[in-house]
Amino acid sequence: MRIGFIGLGLMGSRMATNLLRRAGYDLVVYNRTRAKAEPVLDLGAIWADSPAQLARQVDLIFTMLAHPEAVKQMALGEEGFLDALPPGAIWADCSTVNPSFSREMASQARERGIRFLDSPVAGTVGPATEGKLLFLVGGGPEDVETCRPLLEVMGRKIVHVGGHGQGTGLKMVFNLLLGEAMLAFSEALVLGRALGLSRDTLLDLLLGSAVVAPFLNGKRQRMVEEEYAAEFPLKWMRKDLHLASLTGYEEGIALPAVNVAKEVFALAAGDGLGDEDFSAIYQFMADKAGLDQSQAKASYGRDE
Amino acid sequence: MRIGFIGLGLMGSRMATNLLRRAGYDLVVYNRTRAKAEPVLDLGAIWADSPAQLARQVDLIFTMLAHPEAVKQMALGEEGFLDALPPGAIWADCSTVNPSFSREMASQARERGIRFLDSPVAGTVGPATEGKLLFLVGGGPEDVETCRPLLEVMGRKIVHVGGHGQGTGLKMVFNLLLGEAMLAFSEALVLGRALGLSRDTLLDLLLGSAVVAPFLNGKRQRMVEEEYAAEFPLKWMRKDLHLASLTGYEEGIALPAVNVAKEVFALAAGDGLGDEDFSAIYQFMADKAGLDQSQAKASYGRDE
Amino acid sequence: MRIGFIGLGLMGSRMATNLLRRAGYDLVVYNRTRAKAEPVLDLGAIWADSPAQLARQVDLIFTMLAHPEAVKQMALGEEGFLDALPPGAIWADCSTVNPSFSREMASQARERGIRFLDSPVAGTVGPATEGKLLFLVGGGPEDVETCRPLLEVMGRKIVHVGGHGQGTGLKMVFNLLLGEAMLAFSEALVLGRALGLSRDTLLDLLLGSAVVAPFLNGKRQRMVEEEYAAEFPLKWMRKDLHLASLTGYEEGIALPAVNVAKEVFALAAGDGLGDEDFSAIYQFMADKAGLDQSQAKASYGRDE
Amino acid sequence: MRIGFIGLGLMGSRMATNLLRRAGYDLVVYNRTRAKAEPVLDLGAIWADSPAQLARQVDLIFTMLAHPEAVKQMALGEEGFLDALPPGAIWADCSTVNPSFSREMASQARERGIRFLDSPVAGTVGPATEGKLLFLVGGGPEDVETCRPLLEVMGRKIVHVGGHGQGTGLKMVFNLLLGEAMLAFSEALVLGRALGLSRDTLLDLLLGSAVVAPFLNGKRQRMVEEEYAAEFPLKWMRKDLHLASLTGYEEGIALPAVNVAKEVFALAAGDGLGDEDFSAIYQFMADKAGLDQSQAKASYGRDE
Repeated sequence: MRIGFIGLGLMGSRMATNLLRRAGYDLVVYNRTRAKAEPVLDLGAIWADSPAQLARQVDLIFTMLAHPEAVKQMALGEEGFLDALPPGAIWADCSTVNPSFSREMASQARERGIRFLDSPVAGTVGPATEGKLLFLVGGGPEDVETCRPLLEVMGRKIVHVGGHGQGTGLKMVFNLLLGEAMLAFSEALVLGRALGLSRDTLLDLLLGSAVVAPFLNGKRQRMVEEEYAAEFPLKWMRKDLHLASLTGYEEGIALPAVNVAKEVFALAAGDGLGDEDFSAIYQFMADKAGLDQSQAKASYGRDE
Repeated sequence: MRIGFIGLGLMGSRMATNLLRRAGYDLVVYNRTRAKAEPVLDLGAIWADSPAQLARQVDLIFTMLAHPEAVKQMALGEEGFLDALPPGAIWADCSTVNPSFSREMASQARERGIRFLDSPVAGTVGPATEGKLLFLVGGGPEDVETCRPLLEVMGRKIVHVGGHGQGTGLKMVFNLLLGEAMLAFSEALVLGRALGLSRDTLLDLLLGSAVVAPFLNGKRQRMVEEEYAAEFPLKWMRKDLHLASLTGYEEGIALPAVNVAKEVFALAAGDGLGDEDFSAIYQFMADKAGLDQSQAKASYGRDE
Repeated sequence: MRIGFIGLGLMGSRMATNLLRRAGYDLVVYNRTRAKAEPVLDLGAIWADSPAQLARQVDLIFTMLAHPEAVKQMALGEEGFLDALPPGAIWADCSTVNPSFSREMASQARERGIRFLDSPVAGTVGPATEGKLLFLVGGGPEDVETCRPLLEVMGRKIVHVGGHGQGTGLKMVFNLLLGEAMLAFSEALVLGRALGLSRDTLLDLLLGSAVVAPFLNGKRQRMVEEEYAAEFPLKWMRKDLHLASLTGYEEGIALPAVNVAKEVFALAAGDGLGDEDFSAIYQFMADKAGLDQSQAKASYGRDE
Repeated sequence: MRIGFIGLGLMGSRMATNLLRRAGYDLVVYNRTRAKAEPVLDLGAIWADSPAQLARQVDLIFTMLAHPEAVKQMALGEEGFLDALPPGAIWADCSTVNPSFSREMASQARERGIRFLDSPVAGTVGPATEGKLLFLVGGGPEDVETCRPLLEVMGRKIVHVGGHGQGTGLKMVFNLLLGEAMLAFSEALVLGRALGLSRDTLLDLLLGSAVVAPFLNGKRQRMVEEEYAAEFPLKWMRKDLHLASLTGYEEGIALPAVNVAKEVFALAAGDGLGDEDFSAIYQFMADKAGLDQSQAKASYGRDE
């Protein structure tokens, strides 16, 4: 079996590397900018000059792209791969996109005799490197089984969530929880600091308690050092909250907290924080509150 | 030492019971409605006919009341206790109020030679019954030490957070995190269900994961059974989010997510859910989304 | 010149009627449900069995449809009109859609040698009947001039706003102002009533003042009678706020008030108000506030 | 009759000037900073060294102060005026405060045999100078009649709204409409500009239309010149939205749009815009959208 991989960014390059090293299959790759493909080419991957050219050589194609528009362009744009795949091939889209888009891609694939899975991942660069991602998969049971051995090369756990769009649906649910928790925690810290509690006291008391999500421990260092190296860029969090908002509209449901979080992240992006880690929303709230390191008030005796 | 206790509701009655049983001090009690005091009177507590009458008999007074207005009424209203306490007495207010109110009470107490602590509790009826509350205390170190043995009768941990208003400040921070997490989780569940995932699948996958706060496990049963016996009533969550919003205004900081959560809880109260547990916000969101038990969609094959 | 008209709903049927009566051209019509076409067929319009069949008979086609998905289906779906129009024909889309969709349609049209205008209308059923709509047009100047005589048959004013997507862009701007003003006014009325002011006093003092948009006068009767016959259904307002939110995302700008209004309308739709006039958002807010006719408090002497 | 006036800021100084010039009564004045009183002292007003000293000399006292805390300090603080006024005197509070505060002041006054009116004004510096303010008055009919001649010296219209707190209630309703309309208009402009429409085109088309409140015409120059000389400072708009939010809480009603607007103004204040006119919220939104003068896109041909 020959495998194709399109999208060799931060995540995709690591996933492709694991396929190369640990699966023992030939891997044909394509990326919009070729330079980003060099590391996997050095490891033995084969370059294709277009998505279509790649598709003609493979039975299974993985995509790991930034947003629905990018997926659509690769699949259905000029020299797109969907018309070039051999009938019966499988396309597993690992991108974080909205469920209705996944269902549309499933439908486009089916019309061409291609099998489709939406198989987005939970986990960041670290787990991607170690092959320990969590795959949330939507699609037919047989297709999931066909892909499982390959997914297991890249991930520690494969959850077959349901039909098409339910893998990306669950991913969206995870991400809105991340975004809202990060914003709520930021507001909590800023309020506490404004009341004279030190940031460290607050972090000590809140992190590890039952009222905050455990992933926030992993953001502590960034908030303390006020350096927000991007594990998950703020602009993609904005995108994911947008996709959740869009899905809420499509499904006819109200999501007020999602929508407000979306707009607060949008304001932060407007302040130039889009490429920082999404935990930089704390910095945005702290800046607007006029808080900085030097202004940390003594934690005792405020009113004496 | 004789101790007074005002406010014998769900929480206060259990706290007073522990003082009676485990501290071995005389306990004088007062409550707006005397009937609620009967259980502790049966255990040997002494009834006072007014806050002032109570105050004349004690050296230390605990209050556990519903909101700032109630505290103010007991302390400074007609027959209030603050003018009747002997100089040098201590008042520990365990109510969940806003920090500026605590500072105002500290100031009113100081003018009368009374020592003040804000000592709100984290924990619900269960821990209150077992004497395992967490006390978050604001005030002078000596006053905290004076009260510590009694607080330890009611709680498992006493955190001296800082000066006046910092105990209630930290409590407010905890509660806004609870409220926002509950709302975010509700929106996540509703969105997932609208996409055809079953409630149980969602609960299984999300609870216990790194993206949700651990306390949410304790709400699972209510959401599954759609019965919201109040551990912490939705109307008090609305109040606490209001107090956080108010404090944000006083401190000159923006708290957009807090304010939106506040209004969503207000809308839910407007639908008659104020006396339910605050996890009933899930029911509110599900109702507006047109979801109910029977409409739970099959989790597989939506688009086939 | 033969003209086609697709979409004979509340607005479209009136616009088509004016074209028939006042323009003196042959008019070929299509509608998803044929029954709605009967009135214009009685006036002499010619029925086509599909969008494509209609397109083969005309040089200029108007569409007046509910949302982007409906437009796309008619233009590019099975038996869609875009492939069937003769080269050089003009398509004027009067639907309220989002600007990026208009640009996409312009692009699809151009590929087929078809000229495109986005020409949404401001105005409701009354002006549509009287041929007094306001057209906000995006597209090339020559194409606008070609259509102008026909637009003038349906409207009192034709504003050539700019290039493709700028007609629908301006329409979206108008509609978000309508939606937010209606919500703000509803909150203002509810707050005033809660404070004991009568609804009539508030309406008398606010309507006509400099602080409210004049269109609100036209909603007075509905609010007074609590009957919300749809001039512009709440569900379409929700849609338009969604399209504005979507456009804000695409353009990289934050629109917090738009997004919150969108979600409040979504909650109101969840209470079954989607088919009512969008001024029913007042009813939603009043219901949640526990206000009804009988509870209107006396406007004098509340605190005496 | 001798009249007192406390609070000689932007508005108060002009109101006092009219009383001096046009009413022919003796006017005793007090202000926290004496320097601001000099202009009216030059015109013949008599200085009092404290609110209490002023109160001992007058039968009627006007207050025009920035917020409830300032009013409370002057009335009930050290050397406050309320205990010093002769029984039967009238206190008319022209400050913009919340209704429950007005009712509390009415109650404090009544206990001391003082009659109270809440009589906030609609109108800015211009109308204040010309004696053309609109007074919105809450209180007993006889007291209103007693004050009417003096109010007419300062205002063009006196509306007796109802009982205590209903004058300030109606004022709050006006101000929330101002704030929300300004924010909605700003979002509309920013969205339109992002779509390539010029600011001037948008202002020409929107101002004067039925979808925007007429007062917005008065903000055009500021938005065009991007200079926001304060007619009504943004920080006071934030305060008024806060008071509306507070009142919504007290009255048990939800005001989601008010609360979000409040927080957007708070974020803008955090960017240093608090002392600018509240129309500077447009600048805040435009800045976050990355729009500036030079980036105004051509209004035609975007997609060609």
